[in-house]
Amino acid sequence: MPSVEESLALIKRGAEEIIQEEGLVEKLKRGEPLRIKAGFDPTAPDLHLGHTVLINKLRQFQDLGHQVIFLIGDFTGMIGDPTGKSATRPPLTKEDVARNAQTYKEQVFKILDPQKTEVRFNSEWMDKLSAADMIRLAGQYTVARMLERDDFHKRYHNEQSISIHEFLYPLVQGYDSVALRADVELGGTDQKFNLLMGRMLQKHYDQEPQVIMTMPILEGLDGVQKMSKSLGNYIGVNDLPGEMFGKLLSIPDELMWRYFELLSFRDMAEIEDFKGQVNAGENPQNIKRLLAEEIVARFHGGEAAQNAHKSAGNQVKLGEIPENVPAVHLEESDDQVEFSISYILRRADLVKNGAAAKDVLGRGAVFVDGAQVDASFMVQRGSEHVIQAGKKKIAQVFVK
Amino acid sequence: MPSVEESLALIKRGAEEIIQEEGLVEKLKRGEPLRIKAGFDPTAPDLHLGHTVLINKLRQFQDLGHQVIFLIGDFTGMIGDPTGKSATRPPLTKEDVARNAQTYKEQVFKILDPQKTEVRFNSEWMDKLSAADMIRLAGQYTVARMLERDDFHKRYHNEQSISIHEFLYPLVQGYDSVALRADVELGGTDQKFNLLMGRMLQKHYDQEPQVIMTMPILEGLDGVQKMSKSLGNYIGVNDLPGEMFGKLLSIPDELMWRYFELLSFRDMAEIEDFKGQVNAGENPQNIKRLLAEEIVARFHGGEAAQNAHKSAGNQVKLGEIPENVPAVHLEESDDQVEFSISYILRRADLVKNGAAAKDVLGRGAVFVDGAQVDASFMVQRGSEHVIQAGKKKIAQVFVK
Repeated sequence: MPSVEESLALIKRGAEEIIQEEGLVEKLKRGEPLRIKAGFDPTAPDLHLGHTVLINKLRQFQDLGHQVIFLIGDFTGMIGDPTGKSATRPPLTKEDVARNAQTYKEQVFKILDPQKTEVRFNSEWMDKLSAADMIRLAGQYTVARMLERDDFHKRYHNEQSISIHEFLYPLVQGYDSVALRADVELGGTDQKFNLLMGRMLQKHYDQEPQVIMTMPILEGLDGVQKMSKSLGNYIGVNDLPGEMFGKLLSIPDELMWRYFELLSFRDMAEIEDFKGQVNAGENPQNIKRLLAEEIVARFHGGEAAQNAHKSAGNQVKLGEIPENVPAVHLEESDDQVEFSISYILRRADLVKNGAAAKDVLGRGAVFVDGAQVDASFMVQRGSEHVIQAGKKKIAQVFVK
Repeated sequence: MPSVEESLALIKRGAEEIIQEEGLVEKLKRGEPLRIKAGFDPTAPDLHLGHTVLINKLRQFQDLGHQVIFLIGDFTGMIGDPTGKSATRPPLTKEDVARNAQTYKEQVFKILDPQKTEVRFNSEWMDKLSAADMIRLAGQYTVARMLERDDFHKRYHNEQSISIHEFLYPLVQGYDSVALRADVELGGTDQKFNLLMGRMLQKHYDQEPQVIMTMPILEGLDGVQKMSKSLGNYIGVNDLPGEMFGKLLSIPDELMWRYFELLSFRDMAEIEDFKGQVNAGENPQNIKRLLAEEIVARFHGGEAAQNAHKSAGNQVKLGEIPENVPAVHLEESDDQVEFSISYILRRADLVKNGAAAKDVLGRGAVFVDGAQVDASFMVQRGSEHVIQAGKKKIAQVFVK
């Protein structure tokens, strides 16, 4: 195991807050692998680079020889929304949870070492808890302190309703730390309150309290707002290599250093050296390219990273065919020998409906094998074409 | 079954509030026995007449042909105080609950018909509830509305802590109504909030909501403050006949009518007639005596009621020996042949300590077999004496 100083330097890289650092030092000094917990929502996971800030930190703990616990909070997910107010939060089934867990693993194991990761579900211990146990747990915290939590405080004072079960969820999260005997728990800055709950409950259960560590919320491509799917300023871990590469090259120069710190596994010393180069006149795009290659390689492998620049333009240039175009196989059952381009666009999910097809064709934004076509173009059965509809949609379409 | 009008008149007698009367009328109209629920604390029961106001109402429902459910809330009693703050509220064991239930039954079956009373324990269904069920239950109510409850409101605004589990207890009480399919729930006026919880949860579980009925808090012997053991203004259901009789005769004349309404099973018409007699010049003590005899007969039988007046003075007259004096058997192990009266007073629990013995002897308030004695009096081994220490302490003491 690396020295305490070495470990501490890597652990603190990019971290927002550690409570308490002395506790962490003490735990590290023992020279034993620590149990590092991070909890994840069991609903359909579709991760973007913002989510990976936390996962990267877990990876660093792994590299330092510690035991990482990837906890899926399925217990509350399977309860759903008991108030019945949110139709969009139906209770998950065991099958939903298993499927989502699989999707999670496919994504996070591009960062974490599966051999060194304990994947757990909190239903394992929470399903065994009785109503009486839950009441005892609820006895460990007061209403006033719960209402101090930022979001509860705001909602209470704005007279927005808070259901009582919402007071129980932070206690469940805290109890997970007891059940897992966590030494360290990681979370976003918005999770601080819940992470502290684990410390409190561990003390009550006569365990050494976990150290909590918050990681910052990553800014999106604009460098201003937090990365989020709904804001459209995100890079998904399942984005195609070219798309990922292009988006990373498009970020503001200043944001690059933040991304290096939080998303790259390069040494901070090396990153400082890059900064020096840019200050000495190096073109920032050349450095950004190194970042982009590292990230693309993480999710798509080294070869894809080397070629990603070729297809990076697929979002801006119409009619140019990038590499790594997704394949779509259409099986048409009737005996037509040719199909209208409008029909094929819809079948290949390049447009949502007929009206969208008409629109994109009308704008002259449909290209077949790099050549602009109009609504009269017919696709032959048995053919294959790279078909592009607007700046973002492209597919290699096989028609059987 | 009596008519709806007749039933309603008896049910409404002395009641503080009924929510909602229309619902009650509708339930009564069906002509089926209703399920009448009342919940009781599982801690050591030592009932006074104040508690019997509610039990008398249950008895009236029984007389009207309804099914009374005497619910012992043992589930929460067996959890105790999970905050650990109150050393005086340790969790009850199953044995404690069984013992307390037995004591309850001995007292309440002097009023209720055991054959027509369903005695239930809420652990029966609550022990089967999981933490997930408890969370779902908690989803049915909001923090803001819970904080509207009088005592919570005051404590929150006075910055006195409220543990989160205290928010769960009213939900448990409400769920009891669901489990029991209660038609009516009775409680003191201080229970209104919790009783309403049952209505709310029954609706959620697609049951017809129970009608709730609050009974007033009975004033104590002073006619001003509520009857309570700690205020010393109470009549215990286990008080000796003479004591009970004497206390009832001592109440203010005005309070008598309140006691008649809430504690007597005489017709209201008859009671109105008594009022007329008093207004026409009858001595109120003669009417009060009828009340006293009815109450003493309820707890000690008709004969005791007839003789109670003989011993009713045992609290006021020193040196007069009442009937029904409790017996105390002292077994002295050493070989003394006589014991100081001071020592015997302490041993027989007639005084708390040596100082109190000295005090009561000094005041000339110690009587042995009706004769005043001083500190020099010796009690012989093998003797038996009625020993009185002050106006309230008397026992028949056997010294072996």
